[in-house]
Formats: sequence, structure tokens, C-alpha cells
Amino acid sequence: MRQTCASVLSAITVLTFALGAAADPNSLDGPPAIGQSPAFPNQTRAIRPAACAAYHVETVAEGLDHPWSLAWLPDGRMLVTERPGRLRLISSDGALSPPASGLPAVRAQDTGGLLDVALDPAFAENRLVYLTYLEPRDGGSGIAVARARLTESNGAPVLDGLTVIFRATPNVDNALNVGSRLAFGPDGLLYVTLGDRMTESHQAQDLSSDLGKVVRIASDGSIPTDNPFAGAPGARPEIFTLGHRNPEGLAFDSARGVLWEHENGPRGGDKVNVIRPGLNYGWPEITYGADYTGEPIGSGTQKPGMIQPIYYWDPSIAPSGLAVYTGDLFPDWKGDLLVGALKGRRLVRLHLEDGRVAGEEVLLTELKERIRDVRQGPDGAVYVLTDNASGRILRLTPAVG
Amino acid sequence: MRQTCASVLSAITVLTFALGAAADPNSLDGPPAIGQSPAFPNQTRAIRPAACAAYHVETVAEGLDHPWSLAWLPDGRMLVTERPGRLRLISSDGALSPPASGLPAVRAQDTGGLLDVALDPAFAENRLVYLTYLEPRDGGSGIAVARARLTESNGAPVLDGLTVIFRATPNVDNALNVGSRLAFGPDGLLYVTLGDRMTESHQAQDLSSDLGKVVRIASDGSIPTDNPFAGAPGARPEIFTLGHRNPEGLAFDSARGVLWEHENGPRGGDKVNVIRPGLNYGWPEITYGADYTGEPIGSGTQKPGMIQPIYYWDPSIAPSGLAVYTGDLFPDWKGDLLVGALKGRRLVRLHLEDGRVAGEEVLLTELKERIRDVRQGPDGAVYVLTDNASGRILRLTPAVG
Repeated sequence: MRQTCASVLSAITVLTFALGAAADPNSLDGPPAIGQSPAFPNQTRAIRPAACAAYHVETVAEGLDHPWSLAWLPDGRMLVTERPGRLRLISSDGALSPPASGLPAVRAQDTGGLLDVALDPAFAENRLVYLTYLEPRDGGSGIAVARARLTESNGAPVLDGLTVIFRATPNVDNALNVGSRLAFGPDGLLYVTLGDRMTESHQAQDLSSDLGKVVRIASDGSIPTDNPFAGAPGARPEIFTLGHRNPEGLAFDSARGVLWEHENGPRGGDKVNVIRPGLNYGWPEITYGADYTGEPIGSGTQKPGMIQPIYYWDPSIAPSGLAVYTGDLFPDWKGDLLVGALKGRRLVRLHLEDGRVAGEEVLLTELKERIRDVRQGPDGAVYVLTDNASGRILRLTPAVG
Repeated sequence: MRQTCASVLSAITVLTFALGAAADPNSLDGPPAIGQSPAFPNQTRAIRPAACAAYHVETVAEGLDHPWSLAWLPDGRMLVTERPGRLRLISSDGALSPPASGLPAVRAQDTGGLLDVALDPAFAENRLVYLTYLEPRDGGSGIAVARARLTESNGAPVLDGLTVIFRATPNVDNALNVGSRLAFGPDGLLYVTLGDRMTESHQAQDLSSDLGKVVRIASDGSIPTDNPFAGAPGARPEIFTLGHRNPEGLAFDSARGVLWEHENGPRGGDKVNVIRPGLNYGWPEITYGADYTGEPIGSGTQKPGMIQPIYYWDPSIAPSGLAVYTGDLFPDWKGDLLVGALKGRRLVRLHLEDGRVAGEEVLLTELKERIRDVRQGPDGAVYVLTDNASGRILRLTPAVG
């Protein structure tokens, strides 16, 4: 399927754009200001349309049951999680392997199940993979991170010696707002997003709980001693940042040296953050969203000591996965953020200039499909997962001619 | 505002209607058949449009913060709950009293707060009123039913001697799917709907839990000894029916001698039931809905020992309140069900013939407002509550001329 630039523009024209350039409180340079000024006016609209590029979409693989995440092996094959609890290898021609053996039991319900997958930075030598999943427990469930050595037997992947290296607490009796994205940082440490699980006790602001946090652990599950709350009385030492609602996107930006995150907010409050150690991103005290009835939440949109987002969406799109584009196939996209959207049934490109969102392009609306994740492949193409019981892996490349 | 029949018809034309009359498994006559045949084909579409009547809409009162329920005093004034935790009297000219004193603390979050209100059948003599609300508790919250004597002081209602007569258990740490409608039966007993609270432990099928149940209690909180599970080992004696998801509508139909209930299902599974003692309405084992991703839930749409709905909606409308119309102002509506809808932003009239849904009329779509509840007034007019921070009470009467 060839998608022309013209029809992409027609999708863009439904947006309106704020006029004029406001002062820029969103620079990525320097340390973050506590109590910084609020998001720029009309922040929910990019200041101008992004330049658009005609692209081609092809189906790489199909027949996946709610694929949630993917990772490339050095040999070019993909490792893909399916939310009901399967992990498969996918060959370059799109053939699916049988499901992996050695997986843990998962709670596959609502938004729970087998979730993210990431390779160890030294995978080529140690063959270690990391998985997140909703783990069934007494009194409910909790997000767990496990690692195992990936081998193969008769064409199927095998997880050898699977070990749980982290268990988020407390247990909660629902399968909502699980977060659960994984990313290795340039520090060799593993960052894990944990949603607030929609509890009424609002543990996102509670340092004795892992809910509504980004945590940072070592790849063996030990806690880095320089974590921001390590040693603080009553605080869980794995916590890196707090005040998150349902963070389903996390990606390191090696060129800028920052960690990007996005999260599902309440109605009209989906947002993009830059994650820095020890900071409080405000949920549920501050948000640009309202509850589903339109009622305000918390104390407003800003508060001293709580961090403003870089960008937010109103109406909500339900962002589901994040990649920083660094490839050469789409030269204009270099350094931009790519965001999948479930409710929004689209792929969003946020064009960054000087660390600020200078344009938003809406792609793939013609599919009318829920997008679960987006990744850049080793070939510089953009890969997305569609979220349904017969989900696909799609590959976007520049249109030719 | 005068709403003409023509524009009502234009709303109806978006529906399509099944052709021909199927066999009728939905008769209300006789005892329910366990393992009865499934809902009639295309049950989600009424078999023909209901006749429509031009109606007039006026605002009776405004400035209510998420009004949830109302009840008429014998003197014609209304008692109205506001979800954040207030109870007011409203005079016939729409003036709001100050909030009542003597109310319990409520957990006003997500769908929780101060919810239903009902008068004692002997209110004229004993001045007793009954309230449901989400009660803050250790480890979360639970629905409670309280009763108190209604007096007045300086123009404000006063709840004297408020006593909690029922507490649903277990406590849950979210404020979702709370159910919580009240209705007195012709037996003088109080029926209370309790939602499943979206727990992953799916307690709607668990007789040791009150979640996902309709319970029946006496007005002093004692448990009738002829309740269907009274004396059953391990079962909570208050349970009247089981297998409900989020029942937000409950009304006795004195002409037919049946108790109607409706509940929010998953996507495409909102439904209307007739409630009979001891029966299992199937959630989450059977449903006509799918989860939000489109994935099937449970084991299908029917199962021996589980009761079929009388009607269901696909797409979902989020039914929020129920009345059986018995007045004279709209003669064609006599005996019909009126259903408010939140997501659907409409009032639905289900026209019944021989206990079966013979037609569906969609009203009030022109308001584009979430409807929280619908009641018949003592004047035979239809009253609805709009669900927002500046909610209104609207009155529908036949259009004149």
C-alpha cells in the first residue's frame, strides 16, 4: 500500500495550530527547573505541521494474537510477545515459529498478560532476554521482570533458566494501567515503567509503593546504590521517578542523551515527558486531562515541585509505544519521536527542534487499526504492531517514485 | 425546547431492524427456564421502530454537581444526590436547598461517591430515607447502604440518626463499576445492585463475595430468611442474584410483577435483565460483548444454567438509570422501559409487547449530554438528570400543538 503525502496532509489538516512562537520552557538543555513554568500555550497543538513524506506500508507478519512488543536479534529475526502469553521468533520472510517454552504464567486479562521484551546490551555474547508480564499472585497480580537465556529447539525458542529479577509491589486485584515498558539506558541499567493500576489509593505519589513509577534496576535485579531514593526512609530504593499514570512508552534518545516517556492520562491528558532522576511528574495532583465525566482532577495543571510535560494530547489518543527515529531511510524524521496510538488508531510523528515539539504528523489513519507499538528496525524502516486477535507487523518505508 | 416527532424519527433511522418475528424465548410469563434458548436473532435491534411522540423539554433545576439520583417527597419536592457527597431538596420552582447535614463521608472518585436515594414505602409516616454510597475503608472502599430520618432546619435537609444497614464486602482499592441502585419491592424489601468493581478475581460468580450481585435486605438491614442462598454453606445470605457486571438500573414493574435491571457490559454487551431469585446472569462466563480490544470474553454468549438477557446493545450505550413508565401523559409509553445513557448521550425508550422488546426509540440525542438517571414524576412527566459538573434536571412532557 502506498500512502501519498497528499493524503497524509489531509489527515493533518484536522489539526489547528497555535500562532506565533511562545517562550520555550521545554528546552532539554540543562537541569530541569523544579517549579518550572507551565507548558507553552496551546501545547496540545504543534506549532506548525510537520513536513510530510510519502510512505509505503507492507505486512511483514500476520496472525499474531495481540502482539505487544518486538526486539531484533543480531541475525535479523524478530522476537515478538503476544499478550495472552506467547513469545515467538519471526523470520525475515514473516514465518512464525512455534511459541517459546519456558515462559512464566501470566495474568492475561484486560490490559495484562505477557508484555514487553528487550535484549541484553551484550546479547550477542550472553543471549539474555528480559520480559515484563502481569504475574498472578495472592490477592491479585503485579508486574514482574524476568530474564532468561534464549536458546532454540526444533525451530522454537526456549527460555533457559528464567529468573524473576524484579517484582513490583503491592499486589492489586485488577489488570488495569499496568505500564510495563522496558528500556536499557546508556548506563547499562534497566528502566521499567509501572502504571498506577487505577487504585483509588493513588499510590503514584507514594514512595513506599511501586505503582505509578519508573524504576531502575541492574540487569541482575540488584538496586543501584545511586538511585535517587536509595537510602531515603520509607522509600522503595528502585524508584527513579514518581507521579505517573499509565506509562506505555519508554525510549532512550542517545543523540540527545535523554530518556523519553509517554503516558496515558485521563481524558485529554495523554503526554510526553523527559525522565530525569528523582522528579515528580505530578499524577494525580496535576494533569491537563479531566476525568471521563469532564470533572477536573487534582489541583490543576501545574504545581511547584511537579514537572510539566513536553507535549500533551487533547483529545486523548491512548499512546501505546514509543521509538526515537535515528535511521537514514526517512532523513527528515531523524531525531523525531514516533508514537503508536490505540484509541487514536494512528502513528504519530513528533518532529523535534531544539528538544521541543515543532510539528506533529499523523500517519496510518487509513488503516483504522489500533497500534500497539512502534520500533525502528535495523534496516532503518519503521515497524508497527497492530493490536487485535489477528495482529500484524507492518513495515513503513519511503514511497518510491 | 420542543422536540418534534420528525427529528426523533431521524434519530431512529440510524438503526436497522431485524425482519420477521422470531420465536419468543423472552416471555415474562412463567418461571424462567434454566438453560433456556439464547436471545432472539438480532436481539440488539428492536424488531421495529417504536411509534414516536413529539415532546417538550424544559429545565427544572440546574447547577447540580453530577446529580446521580432523585426521589419525590409527598409534598412534591425532590430529594437529589450529587455524587461528590451532597444531598439537596429542590422546590417545585427549581430552587436548590443548602446541602443536607448528617451525611456520611464518601469516596468521591471515578464512579464513586454519594449515589442512590430512595424513600421508605411508609415515608409519609416514618420519614425514613435510604442512601447508597462508596464508603472509604481500610484497604479501599465498599458500597454501603444507610438510612436516616429526614428532617429540616433553616431550609436545609437534615439526616437524623443515620445508620449503616448494609456494607458490601470485600473492600476493593478502586472506585470502578460500583453499581449501587436501590429499589423497594412489593414485598417491602430493599434490593441493591452491586457492581463487580473490575477486579481480576471475577467475584461476580463467587457466592462468598457481594461483588457483581443483586442483594436483598430488610429495611432495618436484617437478612430475609427466605433469600435464595440463605443457609447455603459459604454463601452470603443477602445475595439474591449473581453474575452481574455493573448494574446501574433497577426498577420494579408493578403491572407485570417483575424486577427489571440493566447493566453495563463490556464493549457491545450492555443489557436488560429480568431479575428472579437465585439466578445466575452469567458475567463473566457469558456475554454478548467483547473486551475493549475486541477479544472475546468468557466462553461465549450462552451456557446452561445462566440466564439470557431480554435485550442488549451493540454498540454499547452505557445505561445509567431505569424507570418503568406508568403515567398518562405519554399514553403510548405506558408499560415501557426508559433507560438513560452516559456514553450514548441519549434517553432510550424500550417499547414492550407481551414482555418483549418490540421497539426502541432514541430520545434527547439533540442535547449531546450524558444522562445519569431517568424517573417518572408524580405528574406523569419524565425527568432526567444530566451528568456533569453543572448538571440539570430536565422534564419531558408531550409537545402541545
